[in-house]
Amino acid sequence: MSASEKDRVKEFTEFRQRMNERILGQDNQVVRRFFALDTQTYKAGKLDLKTKELLGLVASMVLRCDDCISYHIAQCKEAGVDRDEFFEAFSVALVVGGSIVIPHLRRGVDFLDQLEGQGIDAPAAPDHEH
Amino acid sequence: MSASEKDRVKEFTEFRQRMNERILGQDNQVVRRFFALDTQTYKAGKLDLKTKELLGLVASMVLRCDDCISYHIAQCKEAGVDRDEFFEAFSVALVVGGSIVIPHLRRGVDFLDQLEGQGIDAPAAPDHEH
Amino acid sequence: MSASEKDRVKEFTEFRQRMNERILGQDNQVVRRFFALDTQTYKAGKLDLKTKELLGLVASMVLRCDDCISYHIAQCKEAGVDRDEFFEAFSVALVVGGSIVIPHLRRGVDFLDQLEGQGIDAPAAPDHEH
Amino acid sequence: MSASEKDRVKEFTEFRQRMNERILGQDNQVVRRFFALDTQTYKAGKLDLKTKELLGLVASMVLRCDDCISYHIAQCKEAGVDRDEFFEAFSVALVVGGSIVIPHLRRGVDFLDQLEGQGIDAPAAPDHEH
Amino acid sequence: MSASEKDRVKEFTEFRQRMNERILGQDNQVVRRFFALDTQTYKAGKLDLKTKELLGLVASMVLRCDDCISYHIAQCKEAGVDRDEFFEAFSVALVVGGSIVIPHLRRGVDFLDQLEGQGIDAPAAPDHEH
Amino acid sequence: MSASEKDRVKEFTEFRQRMNERILGQDNQVVRRFFALDTQTYKAGKLDLKTKELLGLVASMVLRCDDCISYHIAQCKEAGVDRDEFFEAFSVALVVGGSIVIPHLRRGVDFLDQLEGQGIDAPAAPDHEH
Repeated sequence: MSASEKDRVKEFTEFRQRMNERILGQDNQVVRRFFALDTQTYKAGKLDLKTKELLGLVASMVLRCDDCISYHIAQCKEAGVDRDEFFEAFSVALVVGGSIVIPHLRRGVDFLDQLEGQGIDAPAAPDHEH
Repeated sequence: MSASEKDRVKEFTEFRQRMNERILGQDNQVVRRFFALDTQTYKAGKLDLKTKELLGLVASMVLRCDDCISYHIAQCKEAGVDRDEFFEAFSVALVVGGSIVIPHLRRGVDFLDQLEGQGIDAPAAPDHEH
Repeated sequence: MSASEKDRVKEFTEFRQRMNERILGQDNQVVRRFFALDTQTYKAGKLDLKTKELLGLVASMVLRCDDCISYHIAQCKEAGVDRDEFFEAFSVALVVGGSIVIPHLRRGVDFLDQLEGQGIDAPAAPDHEH
Repeated sequence: MSASEKDRVKEFTEFRQRMNERILGQDNQVVRRFFALDTQTYKAGKLDLKTKELLGLVASMVLRCDDCISYHIAQCKEAGVDRDEFFEAFSVALVVGGSIVIPHLRRGVDFLDQLEGQGIDAPAAPDHEH
Repeated sequence: MSASEKDRVKEFTEFRQRMNERILGQDNQVVRRFFALDTQTYKAGKLDLKTKELLGLVASMVLRCDDCISYHIAQCKEAGVDRDEFFEAFSVALVVGGSIVIPHLRRGVDFLDQLEGQGIDAPAAPDHEH
Repeated sequence: MSASEKDRVKEFTEFRQRMNERILGQDNQVVRRFFALDTQTYKAGKLDLKTKELLGLVASMVLRCDDCISYHIAQCKEAGVDRDEFFEAFSVALVVGGSIVIPHLRRGVDFLDQLEGQGIDAPAAPDHEH
């Protein structure tokens, strides 16, 4: 991973963190409760964490929100989603949401590549080892 | 399930079937291939059928398409999704998509009730037996 | 207002009520909290009830959800929004959301007419008496 | 075309007409100007009427508005769009907008069938004669 | 406000201005009239300027358009919307539009902070002085 | 065209190309078929290439995807769409999709300007020479 790629992931994380603090520092109970509810939503229940994060990922893709996609890709990866599973989830999002999803897919795969510390110069094949 | 409720599920299924035939009867290869690809998308792979149908369901809910929601609810039910799991998937769709999803949630739950042959006069509690 | 028009408002209200009970009767805390938060959102704060309901109305129009539009039209009316104010809110939704909003505007105005007990045969002018 | 099918086209047209009159009867200049602008948009210019109506149709499909789709299908048909051309436009909408467009495609094709006075019992092939 | 933050507000304003001139310099009457209508929409009527700008802000948030959000935040601020009122409007957008709105909320609050000349190093509390 | 403008078009093209290779290098048949279908969609049929690309452009605008807009603007230009025709297509997108389309229109026109090698200092009139 190049320095600039590491920076993109870091920059995204820092801005997210800083603004969340700004927003939750404001005395608005509805906004605070919404953020708390958002966190609660992805706790393991009858559906496990991995499935819930995949649901969040696909929802974010069809609604085409890059930051939400990046966030859920990171969460899915931590929950053990592997490369093939990611692409099966992507394929659902692509078929349901259409070609308009493609630019977000590109940026999502780029983010995943960066998370995996696998730059563009790394050998792309065989894919099955991811 | 009342006669009119049975009719709604039946009417939905018949219209869907009839129009699919009309559409696929047309000599347009892109449309036909898209329909075939749509079917292929939900075949079990590394992610199992149940997970893929849940992904399709949540994607349909945040995009707010009643027919797609009904369709994936029926598929999920066949794949063994139980009532608690349905509501966990619904909760992801609700939090990601917002209150604008609520009217579709109402119609989705109504459709699920009808599928389960459990009319509005059936005892609503305890929920865990559904 | 004709019998069938009164029925439409009544049917909408009854389905909404019945399904809300079904949904809240389910043991899912995220869904229940979301419904509670939704109610809390429109309580008067620094912005008064009327302004908040108008915000909810315009948000529902640009997202094109007929049930949400009907609901907020009813709430706005109770909060004292008059016909001219409704149309100014409609005009914001129309210009921001585009002509795709028009069919929802038609159904919204139809719902408002029914709420006002003013059928299509009533004199349309002068508008200011509504 | 059965009586009930003729009724659906007629009912759609009458509601549209009646509500447009209600809306334009209101003294709101922004709304009125928007409606006038909407009409002006589809006048033939450097792009001919047929192309513009096809643009309106595909835009309506990816935004998934049944009434807008019906309207533009009717306008396209008057402008001379034939069955194969309709399906090529549909295919663009389907691929750009995804499977979420399919239910609207079904209703659109159903509306087109009704416009063409060709009920479901009519021979579906050969398609090229439409 | 740091130099780079001042630059972001300035850059946004300049690009907006420059491209509007390019667009309106083109001889297309529909586009020009749309821009004029857009301006007319937010003129004070029965609803005052502040309410209309808040409607525009919430509509922009649920449709998730960063530039529109920035623009209406600036207009709202000029119309006298204070920090608590901003957050009540944000809360409506968040609950109606869902968590998918959060990244846009972050950027909106960041833009508001910059407008207020209050950098990230400024004490975040008490919020009521804003 | 300044160096930095040339870079933007180049950077967009290179990222697109590189990520497409990454995505198609993955062993997922649904994703690959979707990409192939996307390409097939715009082949000339009964509707010519130019019309199909205009359909893709307007669909991308009302769905508000900058990358898709840039792509179809480039394809339209190659297919012979002139400046007046572009603006007529833009006007349909603007009226159907509303003012929320405007920021994307600005970036689209900026991209078109760069493609045409015509910086902001170039004389804007007469438009017909573009």
